[in-house]
Amino acid sequence: MVKVGIIGGSGYTGGELLRLLLFHPEVELTQVTSREYAGEYIFRVHSNLRGITNLQFDKPDLSKTINQCDLVFMSTPHGVSSKLTPKLLDAGLKVIDLSADFRLKNPEDYPRWYGWSHPVPELLKKSVYGLPELYREKIKNAQLVACPGCMAIVTILALAPVVKANLIDLEHVVADIKIGSSGAGAKPSPASHHAERFGVIRPYKPAGHRHTAEIEQELSQISGSKIKVSMSAHAVNVVRGILSTIHAFLVEKVETSNLWKVYRSFYQNEPFIRLVRDRKGLYRLPDPKVVVGSNFCDLGFEIDNHTGRLVVLGAIDNLVKGAAGTAVQNMNIMLGIEEKTGLNQPALHPI
Amino acid sequence: MVKVGIIGGSGYTGGELLRLLLFHPEVELTQVTSREYAGEYIFRVHSNLRGITNLQFDKPDLSKTINQCDLVFMSTPHGVSSKLTPKLLDAGLKVIDLSADFRLKNPEDYPRWYGWSHPVPELLKKSVYGLPELYREKIKNAQLVACPGCMAIVTILALAPVVKANLIDLEHVVADIKIGSSGAGAKPSPASHHAERFGVIRPYKPAGHRHTAEIEQELSQISGSKIKVSMSAHAVNVVRGILSTIHAFLVEKVETSNLWKVYRSFYQNEPFIRLVRDRKGLYRLPDPKVVVGSNFCDLGFEIDNHTGRLVVLGAIDNLVKGAAGTAVQNMNIMLGIEEKTGLNQPALHPI
Amino acid sequence: MVKVGIIGGSGYTGGELLRLLLFHPEVELTQVTSREYAGEYIFRVHSNLRGITNLQFDKPDLSKTINQCDLVFMSTPHGVSSKLTPKLLDAGLKVIDLSADFRLKNPEDYPRWYGWSHPVPELLKKSVYGLPELYREKIKNAQLVACPGCMAIVTILALAPVVKANLIDLEHVVADIKIGSSGAGAKPSPASHHAERFGVIRPYKPAGHRHTAEIEQELSQISGSKIKVSMSAHAVNVVRGILSTIHAFLVEKVETSNLWKVYRSFYQNEPFIRLVRDRKGLYRLPDPKVVVGSNFCDLGFEIDNHTGRLVVLGAIDNLVKGAAGTAVQNMNIMLGIEEKTGLNQPALHPI
Amino acid sequence: MVKVGIIGGSGYTGGELLRLLLFHPEVELTQVTSREYAGEYIFRVHSNLRGITNLQFDKPDLSKTINQCDLVFMSTPHGVSSKLTPKLLDAGLKVIDLSADFRLKNPEDYPRWYGWSHPVPELLKKSVYGLPELYREKIKNAQLVACPGCMAIVTILALAPVVKANLIDLEHVVADIKIGSSGAGAKPSPASHHAERFGVIRPYKPAGHRHTAEIEQELSQISGSKIKVSMSAHAVNVVRGILSTIHAFLVEKVETSNLWKVYRSFYQNEPFIRLVRDRKGLYRLPDPKVVVGSNFCDLGFEIDNHTGRLVVLGAIDNLVKGAAGTAVQNMNIMLGIEEKTGLNQPALHPI
Repeated sequence: MVKVGIIGGSGYTGGELLRLLLFHPEVELTQVTSREYAGEYIFRVHSNLRGITNLQFDKPDLSKTINQCDLVFMSTPHGVSSKLTPKLLDAGLKVIDLSADFRLKNPEDYPRWYGWSHPVPELLKKSVYGLPELYREKIKNAQLVACPGCMAIVTILALAPVVKANLIDLEHVVADIKIGSSGAGAKPSPASHHAERFGVIRPYKPAGHRHTAEIEQELSQISGSKIKVSMSAHAVNVVRGILSTIHAFLVEKVETSNLWKVYRSFYQNEPFIRLVRDRKGLYRLPDPKVVVGSNFCDLGFEIDNHTGRLVVLGAIDNLVKGAAGTAVQNMNIMLGIEEKTGLNQPALHPI
Repeated sequence: MVKVGIIGGSGYTGGELLRLLLFHPEVELTQVTSREYAGEYIFRVHSNLRGITNLQFDKPDLSKTINQCDLVFMSTPHGVSSKLTPKLLDAGLKVIDLSADFRLKNPEDYPRWYGWSHPVPELLKKSVYGLPELYREKIKNAQLVACPGCMAIVTILALAPVVKANLIDLEHVVADIKIGSSGAGAKPSPASHHAERFGVIRPYKPAGHRHTAEIEQELSQISGSKIKVSMSAHAVNVVRGILSTIHAFLVEKVETSNLWKVYRSFYQNEPFIRLVRDRKGLYRLPDPKVVVGSNFCDLGFEIDNHTGRLVVLGAIDNLVKGAAGTAVQNMNIMLGIEEKTGLNQPALHPI
Repeated sequence: MVKVGIIGGSGYTGGELLRLLLFHPEVELTQVTSREYAGEYIFRVHSNLRGITNLQFDKPDLSKTINQCDLVFMSTPHGVSSKLTPKLLDAGLKVIDLSADFRLKNPEDYPRWYGWSHPVPELLKKSVYGLPELYREKIKNAQLVACPGCMAIVTILALAPVVKANLIDLEHVVADIKIGSSGAGAKPSPASHHAERFGVIRPYKPAGHRHTAEIEQELSQISGSKIKVSMSAHAVNVVRGILSTIHAFLVEKVETSNLWKVYRSFYQNEPFIRLVRDRKGLYRLPDPKVVVGSNFCDLGFEIDNHTGRLVVLGAIDNLVKGAAGTAVQNMNIMLGIEEKTGLNQPALHPI
Repeated sequence: MVKVGIIGGSGYTGGELLRLLLFHPEVELTQVTSREYAGEYIFRVHSNLRGITNLQFDKPDLSKTINQCDLVFMSTPHGVSSKLTPKLLDAGLKVIDLSADFRLKNPEDYPRWYGWSHPVPELLKKSVYGLPELYREKIKNAQLVACPGCMAIVTILALAPVVKANLIDLEHVVADIKIGSSGAGAKPSPASHHAERFGVIRPYKPAGHRHTAEIEQELSQISGSKIKVSMSAHAVNVVRGILSTIHAFLVEKVETSNLWKVYRSFYQNEPFIRLVRDRKGLYRLPDPKVVVGSNFCDLGFEIDNHTGRLVVLGAIDNLVKGAAGTAVQNMNIMLGIEEKTGLNQPALHPI
């Protein structure tokens, strides 16, 4: 049993890590920290785990972490991991960081997108961008994996095949994203107040969303050319789920069947990618409703011949494939465990 | 009192017309027809009107309509109005058609977008496209007004100022639309079953939506050049409301303050357009949540300098400004009544 | 035009008062105060009122209130009105208090139910319990009206006819109440965080709810005997609306038609009571969905012969008939204005 | 591997059985029938199972069932199982019936509550009421198990301890039940149309609900005296989940700590009963939100000294503990498999 810890376990991502790791057959949870809830039963905060675990939150204590853990998940606010992770790495631990602190390769992107100078820029080269579908081989040997942002995961996965195949105009790529309220975290605010948040279709970040930086970084890497992504984020009336609707323009006419082959060959054998483009049924194209609770990323597309547009659709559960599920998937790869271990639950339906 | 009728009053648009017209001080409802509910109390179908009216549905009867009405709202399925309206016009009635039958000017657009040859193409020239903000003067003297589609209304209103000012690239215009379940009408289907429809972010029409035809018709008219609109429609977890997020690319750099002036001057004195772009508050940009129940169309925008993109946001209640409210607004103009009459209720908040 | 003010206008009840009073033809809003938002445009807080009013919040200032207003709505937290109201009354103003400060007649009920000694117990006799259906005549001449609690309004109205007719066992009366999130006010909290509040069926107050006190006070008054009400309050996944399901036991067998007559005769000519008990249609019994936005209280019942039980159902919009609507209804009565003035909007449907 | 079949696999209960059984380590699914979808891929109907199974629906064929299965789940409309089950039993198969056909012991209860004469009343004695917490020993050796109704499960489990301990008045027991839309099944209807079903608090069965029969049967059995249950069912705005709020009257004063002991001792070692009555946290009492997707039944209570009332609260996921989960739990017991096998997933949170 590998000993794993969670630093910052009281948020929604921490809760999902707990839900997954408590049932993972090859790891043992040895420490879960929370500054705010130290000493409290975990099930008081994550009430779905009542009757499942009697673990309590530990107060943060790096030396205890180093003594008790082989691998650590950093589920902390942006800016915390870059302070703690160097020490954990020095002590020989493996680290899977769910914050943004090690996602960007170019140190200058941090002041630009996060308003913040990176304290250990040399570690950015060492960290592996934790998207298994792109970097599985590198993740195997990584000591530090930076889990992507939730909107970045689905958007990169949706676009990677057509970017690699040079099928789209890189100057006019629009990602119109719809996300549930859990994406904003567990901390109450006026914007998350039920009476104000219920029923919205709220364009909360029409431009300038930080995930743009990693999407452009990764897709430019795949393309070999610089891609510009025009991203807008909207809050909609669900708790879990992201739909990324990507509007791109084809550089030449492509048949649906050929595009289908591009996606199939790019993602063949991927355990968590489902290509969804059906002739019948209610869920003929990706919809977060049928991935909620699972680690699947559903991808589909439609060609709009009228305007030469390609619409790519990607759906994930922002807390699973968008965060904790991908983190566990990375862990499995880093530890040489079968990649689907602990991640094979299907979505609940209807929900 | 002008005598008005509603042909096809049992659907959601019919219900909204009733809600508005029953309190309109200058008209009298003389006939409301429904094939399915003839003889039934209206409040059995539109239960919000219990205690408000004891009217019953009439069975459709054109000669009765002609005898009893001065002006008729056609709230019928597509294809019905084009059969009945010519007779009503011949009899001297004014007609406000809420279906698509008289929206498109080019008869060839009907087979193309609706799969259907128009039976009275000569009437297409006579009908006025019922968007008061664009055609107020023509509406004043029109005998036949074709109310626009709900998604067309908000998308045209959002883009008209920048199209007229030649600010955007007409080849790469994306309209990403999110709509509530009432937009699909009152007839149950597997897709509208609560357990399947609740919580979706469903891309139900990623390309080829019929409202594209009227959006392109009207914006091309404004521009003088042909515009192509890449439209995608999504179902989200509300009953009422549309947000249209329009992603366009600026042909040259524009300052926010100048763009603001473009919108202000285009819409000055418009009673139902609110420009929403605030520095603070939860609703700093358009969100259907704060227009529900009102005839407002909220418009706002954001410039994305990173990609040279303009994001325009438009929010309406699909049943009010998107249908019955605009229809009543048209009626007021046609009858020389003050335009806001019967339409001045604000949205309910919170809801 | 009567000059009216709102003390504490930034909450949801204040917002509803504004929505109603801004369109009321016989009053002029002369002051709306808010400690927190003084100087701010009202539409920044109540975004549905953007384009409707350019009023700003005033900072609280009693002498200004006295100078500028003839009648004042107290929409303040419990405990505030009992300090301010005596001064307003002394200055000759009429006061409609939406807080609990003047609802209970017995001063000892305040320490018992509110944990708080009443500072001006002598005023409790002077205040009239503001339920027009019970106290219309007294309200006409009242200087101080205490608007009932939202759950109390619907529960009292549902039970009054059968209590007066001595039809039910007064020892076993259960009021099982379901309410939307707006009932908890505008202030965010962990319990109101969308991700935690969405989808709940949460028994947040199974026993000991404060509205029990006024329900028992009023129904005991009607009965002449002491009634005990067993009340439980649940939070459900809507923003507006209350359904009160009252389970009572019949003291003798009663026919449905006779019970119907009891309700009809009790509420004949009441402008805002609808008796709902239909043979067909989706809304055969009261459901808050079809009262949202209106001042109606829908009442219905069913007899359960199996157990000798009477189920009475009452549905209101907690912010309208449950608060601001009843307050305006009281104002109309106090001012000798036709009682429905400003309150005749039907519910929105569907919503 | 035990070979199991599902007769009637296209509904929501069938979907949940599939979700659970496809991951159950000790059974093999050998037949899943559907009259409507015969030949169709299961994932077209249960879209959450896409990528999980390539099984197709079989057309109903009893001889094939008999050849291929050791144990069969009947997930059929009421009235079907009583025709098929006798033949399956004769062929030696074990049957777990999720319909109402074998729940009631007294044949006369069928015409009374279901309007229907039972065709094989002699089998009613043979069938075991499939509530493991009450009948675990009998289930072990049963050939035919009748799974209880969803509302019956949670209501019986909530009341059993206090009924057994003779603590409540058996004449005044109220069960006020709130349920999500999945409880009404997968077939669309006007009442389930999203625009009509969203946001309701609809008292759809204030009296006379059929589950009353089994609740009274089982609780009377426990009590030794006849109990009368006054049940009302309400539809609320969620897809999954039941909260049963039971209002009972204590025959004598009881301390909270003693009542706690009554529940603890009744349910000690029960794997799926959680007693929830916490001092802090958002979920201090049962709420379906934190059981969704799990097989837990959360139970809690509060004593209302003011009226001598006991409020018992029970929360389940209607499709899991309320149907498929209990069915699998029964299967495990019948087959001598560890009872929690295949059922240990916690709820998703937040959702």
